[in-house]
This record gives sequence, C-alpha cells and structure tokens, in this order.
Amino acid sequence: MKNTFGNNVSVTLFGESHGAAIGAVVDGLPAGIPVSEDFICHQLSLRRPIGKISTPRREADKFHILSGVYNGYTTGTSIAIVIENTNTHSSDYSDMRSIARPGHADYTAYCKYKGYEDYRGGGHFSGRITAALVAAGAVILSALKNKGITIGTHIKSVHGVCDRSFGNIEEDILALADKEFAVLDESVEEQMKDEITKAADQGDSVGGVLESAICGLTAGVGEPWFDTLEGCLSHILFSVPAIKGVEFGAGFDISNMYGSEANDCLCFDGEKVITKTNNNGGINGGITNGMPVVFRCAVKPTPTIFKEQETVDFKTNENTVISPRGRHDPCIVHRARVVVDSVAAIAVCDMLAAKFGSDWLA
Amino acid sequence: MKNTFGNNVSVTLFGESHGAAIGAVVDGLPAGIPVSEDFICHQLSLRRPIGKISTPRREADKFHILSGVYNGYTTGTSIAIVIENTNTHSSDYSDMRSIARPGHADYTAYCKYKGYEDYRGGGHFSGRITAALVAAGAVILSALKNKGITIGTHIKSVHGVCDRSFGNIEEDILALADKEFAVLDESVEEQMKDEITKAADQGDSVGGVLESAICGLTAGVGEPWFDTLEGCLSHILFSVPAIKGVEFGAGFDISNMYGSEANDCLCFDGEKVITKTNNNGGINGGITNGMPVVFRCAVKPTPTIFKEQETVDFKTNENTVISPRGRHDPCIVHRARVVVDSVAAIAVCDMLAAKFGSDWLA
Amino acid sequence: MKNTFGNNVSVTLFGESHGAAIGAVVDGLPAGIPVSEDFICHQLSLRRPIGKISTPRREADKFHILSGVYNGYTTGTSIAIVIENTNTHSSDYSDMRSIARPGHADYTAYCKYKGYEDYRGGGHFSGRITAALVAAGAVILSALKNKGITIGTHIKSVHGVCDRSFGNIEEDILALADKEFAVLDESVEEQMKDEITKAADQGDSVGGVLESAICGLTAGVGEPWFDTLEGCLSHILFSVPAIKGVEFGAGFDISNMYGSEANDCLCFDGEKVITKTNNNGGINGGITNGMPVVFRCAVKPTPTIFKEQETVDFKTNENTVISPRGRHDPCIVHRARVVVDSVAAIAVCDMLAAKFGSDWLA
Amino acid sequence: MKNTFGNNVSVTLFGESHGAAIGAVVDGLPAGIPVSEDFICHQLSLRRPIGKISTPRREADKFHILSGVYNGYTTGTSIAIVIENTNTHSSDYSDMRSIARPGHADYTAYCKYKGYEDYRGGGHFSGRITAALVAAGAVILSALKNKGITIGTHIKSVHGVCDRSFGNIEEDILALADKEFAVLDESVEEQMKDEITKAADQGDSVGGVLESAICGLTAGVGEPWFDTLEGCLSHILFSVPAIKGVEFGAGFDISNMYGSEANDCLCFDGEKVITKTNNNGGINGGITNGMPVVFRCAVKPTPTIFKEQETVDFKTNENTVISPRGRHDPCIVHRARVVVDSVAAIAVCDMLAAKFGSDWLA
Repeated sequence: MKNTFGNNVSVTLFGESHGAAIGAVVDGLPAGIPVSEDFICHQLSLRRPIGKISTPRREADKFHILSGVYNGYTTGTSIAIVIENTNTHSSDYSDMRSIARPGHADYTAYCKYKGYEDYRGGGHFSGRITAALVAAGAVILSALKNKGITIGTHIKSVHGVCDRSFGNIEEDILALADKEFAVLDESVEEQMKDEITKAADQGDSVGGVLESAICGLTAGVGEPWFDTLEGCLSHILFSVPAIKGVEFGAGFDISNMYGSEANDCLCFDGEKVITKTNNNGGINGGITNGMPVVFRCAVKPTPTIFKEQETVDFKTNENTVISPRGRHDPCIVHRARVVVDSVAAIAVCDMLAAKFGSDWLA
Repeated sequence: MKNTFGNNVSVTLFGESHGAAIGAVVDGLPAGIPVSEDFICHQLSLRRPIGKISTPRREADKFHILSGVYNGYTTGTSIAIVIENTNTHSSDYSDMRSIARPGHADYTAYCKYKGYEDYRGGGHFSGRITAALVAAGAVILSALKNKGITIGTHIKSVHGVCDRSFGNIEEDILALADKEFAVLDESVEEQMKDEITKAADQGDSVGGVLESAICGLTAGVGEPWFDTLEGCLSHILFSVPAIKGVEFGAGFDISNMYGSEANDCLCFDGEKVITKTNNNGGINGGITNGMPVVFRCAVKPTPTIFKEQETVDFKTNENTVISPRGRHDPCIVHRARVVVDSVAAIAVCDMLAAKFGSDWLA
Repeated sequence: MKNTFGNNVSVTLFGESHGAAIGAVVDGLPAGIPVSEDFICHQLSLRRPIGKISTPRREADKFHILSGVYNGYTTGTSIAIVIENTNTHSSDYSDMRSIARPGHADYTAYCKYKGYEDYRGGGHFSGRITAALVAAGAVILSALKNKGITIGTHIKSVHGVCDRSFGNIEEDILALADKEFAVLDESVEEQMKDEITKAADQGDSVGGVLESAICGLTAGVGEPWFDTLEGCLSHILFSVPAIKGVEFGAGFDISNMYGSEANDCLCFDGEKVITKTNNNGGINGGITNGMPVVFRCAVKPTPTIFKEQETVDFKTNENTVISPRGRHDPCIVHRARVVVDSVAAIAVCDMLAAKFGSDWLA
Repeated sequence: MKNTFGNNVSVTLFGESHGAAIGAVVDGLPAGIPVSEDFICHQLSLRRPIGKISTPRREADKFHILSGVYNGYTTGTSIAIVIENTNTHSSDYSDMRSIARPGHADYTAYCKYKGYEDYRGGGHFSGRITAALVAAGAVILSALKNKGITIGTHIKSVHGVCDRSFGNIEEDILALADKEFAVLDESVEEQMKDEITKAADQGDSVGGVLESAICGLTAGVGEPWFDTLEGCLSHILFSVPAIKGVEFGAGFDISNMYGSEANDCLCFDGEKVITKTNNNGGINGGITNGMPVVFRCAVKPTPTIFKEQETVDFKTNENTVISPRGRHDPCIVHRARVVVDSVAAIAVCDMLAAKFGSDWLA
C-alpha cells in the first residue's frame, strides 16, 4: 500500500519537493460533510515557516480540490487535492547529488530507488509533502469536529526547554488552534525560539517533543490485536519526517512505576466513567476508555546543518565531507505539530469509520 | 482487519485465555521453508513463566500444526497453529465480572463488546494470546534466519535497574537466544529479580524497558510514506500487551541533541557503507540503511496487583474497590521479550515479502 | 492476503484435504450475534455428498468453535472454526504424484509450490476446503438474516437440463433452504440426476449453472470503483472450485439486447422504488438499487474422470496418460450451491460492515 | 478501499465527469521503468470516440504527470496523472437532476450519496473516469511488456455480429495494438458499425462482448483462495461501466460439456508444458498454467438512449417519463476494449508484484 494509509477512510499521497505538484487523495468520507477552503488555508498556514526560525523557502501553498467536493460539501467520492510547487531552487542541490547528507534519506533512497529517485530538495522524502497531509487532514479534522472530536498538539519541549503539560485538555486544544508557535505556557516561547536561533547561528539545528491530545472519542474504539489505537496512531505518526519515538500516557516513564502507581483508578463522574489519573493515555487493551488520548512524539533535530560532516559519495564510492548549502529549518518541531494533528485525525477517522461505518461520519 | 497483520506475509490471531484453544494462521510464506517444531517449543519455553517472579499458571503450550506444513517444510499455503488451553481456573475471575480492574481492559472490553465478551482470564486481551504470536513468530524467525536476518531483545531495565546497551549486536543476539532471563550483563540479573520479588511481596508489580535489534537487513527496506519501517514495527509492537512507548535509535533522547550530534556520519567499511553512530536506529526516511535496526519498548507494570484499588462496577454503576485474587505476574518484561522478537519478525518478513516477493523467502 | 477475504468482516481459510484439519477464522463480527451450531450443521449437511450422484467419501464434518463464541453469542473477537479430517485414503493418490490430472491444479500447484505442496487429495485445492467456508458462511448468513437479508441458490442447469428461473424470489429462497438437491421446479430433479448418473456410468462428469439471489439489501450498497458489488462478489465466487464464469442480471444475454430492452424502467411500488425488469441484477453503477441481486455461476464438470487422458509427468518430463482412481464426484453443482450462498454472504457482510460499521451487524 | 485497487501495485482513481479534472495515482511500481508519454497518448486515443458511432463529446485528454516520473523513468514513488476536463456541457443534464435515467446509476447514486453527488454528466460514475484508468494502465502495460507480458482485447461481438476467435494469440494481440476498431476479422467491422448506426438512428443503443488474452505469464501466478487470477481480474473488470458478466476459457459453455471434453490435456511442446485445448482459459485452481489467459466480458448496451422511458422522479416521489438529451454513445464496446486491457494490466501487475516483489518489475 505504501503511499496509502487507512482501510475505511484512506489518504493517498504523491509528489516530490521540486516536481510539478504534490497532493493527496482522501477516500471513504461519506457525502454531505462541509468542506471549508478557508480552514484548509488556515491549517496550511500553521505549517508554514515563520520568521527567522524557519527556512526562507516560502510556498504559497495554493491548492486545488480537483474532485469529490461539490457546492461546498463532500460528494462521497474520492477527494483529490493538489498543491503546486512554485518556489523551487533545484540548483542548490545538484552538486551534492551523490554525496549523502547525514541524517537524511539520501543514501537509503539511493539504495531503494537505485539512482532513479527525484533527488531535488529531498524529493518524495521532503517535509514539503506534509503540506498535502495537512490539507487532507484539514478536511478530516473538520469532519471529526462535527462529531465532537478535537485534536491538538503543543510543543512540549525544544532542546530541553519545556512547556507545561496539558491541563484542561479541551480548553488547551481550543487555545492552540490558532497559535503560530503552539505552546500552552507562552512564557516559554521566547526561550524556545532563542534555542532555535542559537542553533541556527551556529549552522546547527535542534529538535524537541510534541505532545498531543484527542478529545471526544467514545469509549470502545480500537482493537486488542492488531489494530490497537496506539498501533494505528504510531503507524502513521512515524511517517512524519524526523519522528523517532512515540509514547502514550506516561510513556517511557511508566516503566519505572509500580503497578499501584501506574494503574488508573476508575470512578463515576456523574454518569460517565473517568479515570483519576491518565497514565494509560486514554487507552486500555488498545481501546479507548473515554478519557482524552494523550501521546508524545520525539522529533529529531533537522538533519540539514551547515557544519562540515563526514559522509560518503555513493557514486565514486569514496569517503568525503559535506557542508550543505540551500535553505533549511534549524528546527521543525513547531511546524510539525499541525502535521501531527493531521495524521492523528486520519488514523482516528479510519478507526471510527470501521466501527460505526463510513455513513456515520456525515 | 483487526486480528490480521501483514499484507504479503500475514498472521491472524484467535483465542481467549480460558476458551478451548488459542492459535494463529500464518499466510503468505512460500513453499519449502523448513519448520522445526523443536524451535517453536524452544521459543514458547522462553515465554513461559519462571520461578517465583512469574505467575503460577503453567501451561504446557502443547501446539498442533493443522495445515500448511508437510514433511517438515512449508507447503506454501496457510499454516494454522493451535495451542490448547488446559490450566484454566475460571472461577478465580467470575465474582469480579463487572468490576473493572484498573489498568486492564475490562472496562474498555465492556464498552466495545457490550457484555458479550468472554471475560474469563482476560479473554482475548490476555497475555496468553501471545503464545500464539510466539509460535507463529518462531516459524517466521526461522525463515528470516535462513536469509541472514536475526532478531534479539534484552531487558534494558526493570524498575530502574539497567542492563548494558548493545555492544557487538550480532554476538549479543546470539548470546540472548537461549537465555531464560535475557540480560546482556548477567551481573544485573539478580538485582532485577530482586526488584520483581520485592514488588511481588508487596502485592505490587513492576515494568521495564526492552531493547531490540534486527541484524542483516539490507539497505533499502521500508517506505517513506506510510509504511516506514518504524511505523510498521510500532504498529504491531503496540499489540503486545503493556507496551506504552516505542522509540528507535536514540529515541526520545534525540530531542535534546543538536543536529550535529544526532546525525549519523557515513563512511565506508571496506565496500559497505556504515554509520559511525546509530542515533537513527538503522533507519532514514523510513528505510533501512544497512545498520542494525535498534528500538526500545516501554513495558508498563502488570496491571494485576493485590492491593486494594478504587474502581467502578459497570453493571451496578457504582464506585467500588477491588483487591484482585487469582494468579498473576508481578512483572512480564522478561516474558514479553520473545513476544517482541516474534512480532518484529512478522513485520519485517511482511516488508521483505513486499519488496522481494513471497517467493524470495524460500 | 491470499487466504483472507474481506476488510471489515473477513474470513481466513486454512487446511488440506488429507491434513489434520481444515478451518476458518471469521473476524470483524460484532459481539452479540447468536451462533447456532445446529444451523452450521445444517449448512454442512447441504454440502455433503448424496446418494449415487456424489463421491463415496463421507466426512462427518465434525466442527469445533475454538474461540469468539461464548454462551451462544459472538464475543466480538475472531471466531476460529476447525473441522477434522477423518475419512482420508491418501494411498489412492500417491502413485500419481507427479502425473498432472487434466483440469486439476496439480501442474499449477507444482509450478507454484515447487513440489512442497501437500498433494494428497488435492491438498489445499480440494473442494474439501469449502466445508470450512460453509461453516464460516453459516455464522454470517445467520447474522445477515437477522438484518432481513436472505440468500439462496438453485441449480439453474445440469448439462443442459434446466430449472425454471426465479419467480417470487423471497419465497423461492425460503423453499430452497432445506433442499438437498436445490431445484425450484422439482420435476426436473430426476432428469438432472439422470444426466449425472449417465455421466458417472461412463466414468465421465458433468457441470452446470447455479443461479443465486440476495434479497433485502437496501439501495446504496457498493462502490462505483473498484469495490462494485459485482466485483466483490465475483472476486470470492471464483474461489469456489470449478466456477469459470459469473454474470449478473441478464448477464451475457444483455450483449444482444437493445438499450431500450436492457434498461430497467423504474416506478414506485407504494413508497418503494422498484424496477419493472431486472436485467441489471439489482445493481447499477456497482451499487444496489433495492431489487434482488441476481447472479449466475458457470460450474465446470468435475475434472476427475475415470477415462484415460493424455497428460505429462512433471518429474520425468515425459508425456504420459492417466486414468485416475479414487473417489470423486461426477457432478459438484448441487454441492456447490451452499458454498455459493456462503461466499456471497461473506462478501455482502463485508460491504455492509464497511457502510454501516461493524457494530451495526449485531 | 473503494477507489484504490491492488495491494502491491495499486491504482487510486478520482474525478467527476464535469469537475475540474480526473486522474489516477499509481503506486508500488519500482524505480527505473521507462514511461512514454507518447504511449499514454496512444492508449488514450484508442479510448476516444470515433466517427458517427460515438458521442460527439471530444476531449483532448491532455494529461499531466505530477509526480513519480523523472527524466523519463519511474522514480519508485507514487505517480499522479491528472487529465483536465474541458469539453463539458453541464446544462444538458441540469433539468433532469432528479429523474433517474433507467440503466444508469442516478438512482443508486442518490441512495448512496443522498443528493450530495456531483450529478453532472454522470459524475464519478461516468465512463469519462476510464480515461484515467487508461492512462494509469498505459504505464503498467509498458512495464509488463518489458517483462514479456502482452495483453489484447478484441470486439468478439456487437449486437450479435461476431468476430472470429483468437487464433495465434501473440500475433493477434500485436495486430490489435493500433486498431481504432479492434476486430480480428476486418470483414465484420462494417457490419458491426452498421448495427451501431442502425441503433443510433433509432435513438437506441447496442452492446456486445469483448474477448481478451494475456500472453507471457509464467505458470504459477495466482492463489487458490481467495486471490485466484479469475477473482482478481473479475474484481476490477466489473468496475468498467456496463460490464455485467465475466467468463474464462470456455466460460458458460463449459457447463454443458462432459469432463472428458472440458479437461485440457497436457503435453510437452519442447521443454514447455502446454495444453491441447484451453477450456480453462490458462488457469487451474486460480493459478496460471502458462497458457494464454483468455476471458470475455459482456458489455451491456449504453443506457443513455433517446427513446421515452418510464422512470421515477426521486425528489417529487412520482412516476414520470424521460427522454434524455445530450451527447452519448450508441455503443461503447469498441471504446471499452482499451479500458479492459488497462484494468487487466493493473490486476496482473499487482499479482506479479506479490509473487516476485515490486523490485522485480523494473
């Protein structure tokens, strides 16, 4: 399946960084869901580079919905969204064609595609492709919102500078929706940006951790084997370039707890069952328990740096060094958060469609 | 798809803890792969409870291969393996039918299956089902070994007591193969077991971290979207009960590194390209780079504890307390490691079959 | 996926004719569907050989439900059904190990499985495997019936002797349910049986056509691309051994009609839209229109005959002749009809689960 | 999966007849396959309406490859092909918005999409969408040809006027490649066209039968359950609008044969095993036997006719009559044949990729 994710609601990706266009096909949504081009624009804007802490490449992200939407509503057939590539400087890359950039997929792409890959700007591996994911995700996030399900992600940390954790999650998600730099505690924003610019000034880069929550999921979504909610979410999350770890609830910290600490005690909150803690991240046995689903993603520092690094030339088969030029992001954590929201929405929507049927989503 | 994982080589699971039997169907393996019942037995023995640090439930794990193997070789058709349940004490559970055990899937199962679930012994959620995964995994691990691919997992930590990290990974995997309690540094074994018995004595439980490596994978396996090697592995890993986090290479630690630290420099080792560090865990852009694939799983403390905990009775809709009885494991980290090997083998085998074809595996 | 069919409700098959057992795993059914072992028995009895017109191999078809059913209801987890093989005469086949029986899969199995196939009794290709399909289908047919959907198949023709076509389809389906030899016009039964015994007496075999109908499907089930109802049904129907053609509505005859004859005019029957004719077999654009879905399958004459035939020995690479011995069916049309009902139920159930959700089926 | 077909090599369709564009995403092809835009043009030209026997709607079928092809070769990533819609007369359709055209999908689309469908020109149900299938198929047909596999389809009959059957199949396929009106015996071409124009003159339409062959497939491709070659081919063939029946080899005629007639005797032709007849259409037990795969599709008469027909208005819930206007084809058999070639190529390519691996195709 490769570039397609999802069985009941699916997204198919295509495109290369410096090709004609990138895009996505969203399939399986029922007819009658309102589609707002404004909201797609808004989501794309959250992914766009900002100020000094991002790449100078600024794409207009002009998109066209080619199919599947008519008079502002989904028609129930596949929705193709195409985003033009306009601002491409391919010559930046041509001279390092066969010199693998460390941390990038240059060498693995060469091994897999045997030299036929469109290497310009990272080709199909480029973070650019996530714009298509964000556009597709916007359509799905809207559909979920209509069913009372909201998703939000904040920058939990950048190179060690930490945001507070989620508090009142529903309110936090609401507050994050329009933030260009998504922190809950705005007092840490400048420190984080300082870390990024400090790294940028040295020709280096930094990473961080994103923390996400999904609210409004009814209890009973997910499967014990193999389509656990954790499994399906992580499957798609690891597609987001630079993510190297995914954890739910207390995550890796849970491995140091006693069972009596880790277990989330249950109680009634009115007629609703809740848990007093949420160390399991809203999921038991792969299935939602009605609490917010909480997870974190480790985002590595952007591999493109302007320091000299040892590497290989896989055409001449010689060791060499590289000092990349071109445009790049000293940190992509803040831009990745809307991508995380988008892919989480895709995975959740697919699971809901499996349980309740495609028709239910309308 | 639910109980089936894999597109080209797939495993379908069935069974409940206290039902007639559990089992798995392995499909997609080509004809001509030798199947050793002894090796399946061996792998099942690694999953079995040991000494004081495990549940007193001791299953013979007697298995029957019903199909797909003839004269000691795969026939190329689906392989059904059935394992009888014999040592079941269902009465241990009947009186807490509707009282949700915190940390368990009782409540989520009830939400999903509306009271029709076979709740005895955890039913389909029980760790017991992993015996079927281990049997299926044994067949696949053998097939991979014939292609030069080996997988090994050690107990990286138990409640804070740490094993050393992988050193010479191929040798380490070899050394782990027969260990009942899989640590690389045997001097930590007693400390870990002490932590477990200490928790058990208090009616409590502990968790830990498993670290795994896959050796012998050629560069070029995996996809950039959506079937990254990380994504496919994590998808199935989160099915292993109690796993709440998965990370590759440096994992969450990478979020605190500079790009210049995190990037793995490449160089030639003879004719082979290697990386000097392995912070990316052998994977760039979702695709293997020829280095060992390294990942870690966070395993939560076993949810069954003998301490009193607050919870709900979802039949009477009242708050209540529970003090579970029955048999249980104060720690399942050491038993889970062979399950991790097994599911990793299933995911890897499926990806190899996609790339090279089912026929290649023979 | 090979031995698994279906995305939302799926069936996984395993087994060989002369192996330990055959079986199926049904996955994706929600909890709470009643499962009647008596009905499974009944359906298996309809597949069993009868009198002189069938093979003397008589299997008890004793089945065991290993999982997924508890207290007479589905639990919502995967249902494994195993049927023992008991009455096997493998020696009948051993001496023609490498001599391809014309019309059988011996040669293609050898090409695919390279000699590792379990060739005894046709192995995994045997019609015997359809017993597992019938058992799985029985569970699903019951579930569909609870939703008002019924499926029935009659013997439209045997070697040119024709039954009448469907009349009042709902009544016809009801009448067929218990018939051992499923004809609508019982006056043709003897003629058909005569054709079969006449062929059997000559050591030859005959085929025929099965005609099926599905009633009670709401309008709007199916997809225009690629999961048309026709496409999904035919996909699984061609798994039934000996089926070489599938047609819907007027089928191949429609190619000789004018559009003005072929088009089914619509009108209101009370509040319901019906069509005056049903040349499209209840399907337009791949989607049900609310009329009964009607299709026919061409069943070839059983390939096992007792006449001498030219063939090859694929071990010695020489031309040779074969005169098969053993037990066989001079006609399998009457036995195949319950298999057709079963696989049609599987395909339809999967499509309904996609549209309305797994939960809807309960 | 709906608009996606194939597991290893897949095609995802999108578009509506009168929307902005239609298109397809081809995924799973390895890097390094040459892609000829000329050949895509050529294939599209074979689908285009011709002379008096087709619709006056003439689309330029201008296509753009947005991704996955670089310097004339596949890159190994997903290939998006977009075809603009230019020549649209939507007003032809607006006034019959809610009046179901008999034989069309208007009513079923309404039931499924609840009025949100883009009804203009048949929307997503339009034969127009097959242009995208033909473009995608062209890429795949080229890839197959490089592996020695050729596919060809001729018009076996139009409203009872018959072409000869396949003779030397490889030569016949070659001869068909460039024919605008694909008959083997050119002497029947005028009679067929006469039937079409005769029907057109009466405001009526005719159908026919297409016969196809696939040459060069090695023995051993396909599965016994459930992915038989017949099943996979028919699954996608029924997506081609107007196809109501699919048969292999002798097809429905085989139901009237004796086993001794139907069985294809085997013999050596040099070192290769062949069959003396091909009643099984090159497939035994769902698996290729090395003979040409031969199948036929029944194509119904185009449902759009200019005669008055009874039908319903599904908005006013009244019976009514309809006399469609607009542009239409009095016969689509000759245009459908390149669509059949295309979808057959997609199904076969997917099966080969499963068996031999994606990499093998390059």
